Amino acid sequence: MSAGRLIGVGLGPGDPDLVTLKALKAMREAPVIAYFAKAGRRGHARAIAEPHLPEGRIEEALAYPVTTELAFDDPAYVAALSTFYAASAARLAAHLRAGRDVALLCEGDPLFYGSFMHLYERLRGDFATHVIPGISAMSGAWSAAGLSMTWGDDQLSVLSATLPLAALTERLSHADAAAVMKVGRNLAKVREALSAAGRLRQAHYVEYATQQRQFSCPLADKRGDAAPYFSIVLVPGQGRRP
Amino acid sequence: MSAGRLIGVGLGPGDPDLVTLKALKAMREAPVIAYFAKAGRRGHARAIAEPHLPEGRIEEALAYPVTTELAFDDPAYVAALSTFYAASAARLAAHLRAGRDVALLCEGDPLFYGSFMHLYERLRGDFATHVIPGISAMSGAWSAAGLSMTWGDDQLSVLSATLPLAALTERLSHADAAAVMKVGRNLAKVREALSAAGRLRQAHYVEYATQQRQFSCPLADKRGDAAPYFSIVLVPGQGRRP
Repeated sequence: MSAGRLIGVGLGPGDPDLVTLKALKAMREAPVIAYFAKAGRRGHARAIAEPHLPEGRIEEALAYPVTTELAFDDPAYVAALSTFYAASAARLAAHLRAGRDVALLCEGDPLFYGSFMHLYERLRGDFATHVIPGISAMSGAWSAAGLSMTWGDDQLSVLSATLPLAALTERLSHADAAAVMKVGRNLAKVREALSAAGRLRQAHYVEYATQQRQFSCPLADKRGDAAPYFSIVLVPGQGRRP
Repeated sequence: MSAGRLIGVGLGPGDPDLVTLKALKAMREAPVIAYFAKAGRRGHARAIAEPHLPEGRIEEALAYPVTTELAFDDPAYVAALSTFYAASAARLAAHLRAGRDVALLCEGDPLFYGSFMHLYERLRGDFATHVIPGISAMSGAWSAAGLSMTWGDDQLSVLSATLPLAALTERLSHADAAAVMKVGRNLAKVREALSAAGRLRQAHYVEYATQQRQFSCPLADKRGDAAPYFSIVLVPGQGRRP
């Protein structure tokens, strides 16, 4: 008997119709469906897959021990996550060794800020793997807002809103176009960085892109600094346009 | 009679199975299918759509008057492209005014370095529009090469290989992760910039990602500087990994 394959299945930004034919096929053929989720929740990837999943699959819900309760640089956070990823890899390895393919569902694109990478790097030495790309959250966001993002030689800078203010400002100052991810509770800082970089007026705010409660507006028009985890700030480029 | 809608249909990096359900639906419902192509060729977007297109559609092939024969900053190039985009917009507008939806096929993602944007910006003031995102070429490339691209706070810098050497070097020096697009005839320059930025050993070369003739290797192992238009150089990030 040969070992199973670990398949990273990119499911896109949220709309179940933005799933690819290849992802559909992988979900229909794999006997084991795995996904990350916040404890007590179903998880975003599993929700996107819902209309497409056949009955009778083994499901492995990998529930984070902690999400935003601790800071990223807290040693307790690092230790908890490290233990969690090792245990999750062991759960999937048991299926793989028994010859069962495992489809690990991923919102967005698996290799672009994806939790998938933590298991991929732990398992790829021992098992065959395959990665099916998905539409990234930022691509869903600029399409939802109708923003022509990059032209000609424009550089796009993809930044995490979790960066310190000075680093964010510096990087926004040098970018032609920018996508700021992981906005959530960092919106006030993102505004301040954009303002300091002289880019605030060009910025757009997008939340829940491609989902039913999708909303977007110029950032300057957005009231208050409350923003959900699934929000992104975009600054379109101004490059060559014949 | 109401006017038709212009629909930008992202088709992904090349594998026809990386088309989304939403793109499929749009291609099946629109009476007019338009696409850009090099004169005398069918074009990449049309090739990706081939297995999915129903019979009996009106097809509008928009053939570039010039592609790489003139430099981007040559006034003759700018004039030729500008005339071409205006004429193409007029061709599509005639269908839209007659009440026919037009699906404009786009390789990759329509609003990310896409020719679609030139017609979108010309027509969106007069007609209803809708953009269906697609998997970008860079996402197809890092999935094909199995590269975990961005971790934690990593910044991703997307650069065009058409930039001057100094600008390319400067930007690669400051990036955590990088994707260099439009490599083609610029590969020697990209190598030089990566070397000057101290990133050459971490770089990977990918050509024809997700297509049958897909190939990838560490850039240091690639012989010669010949590279097709559909090639990308990637430098993965090294951010936080619990």
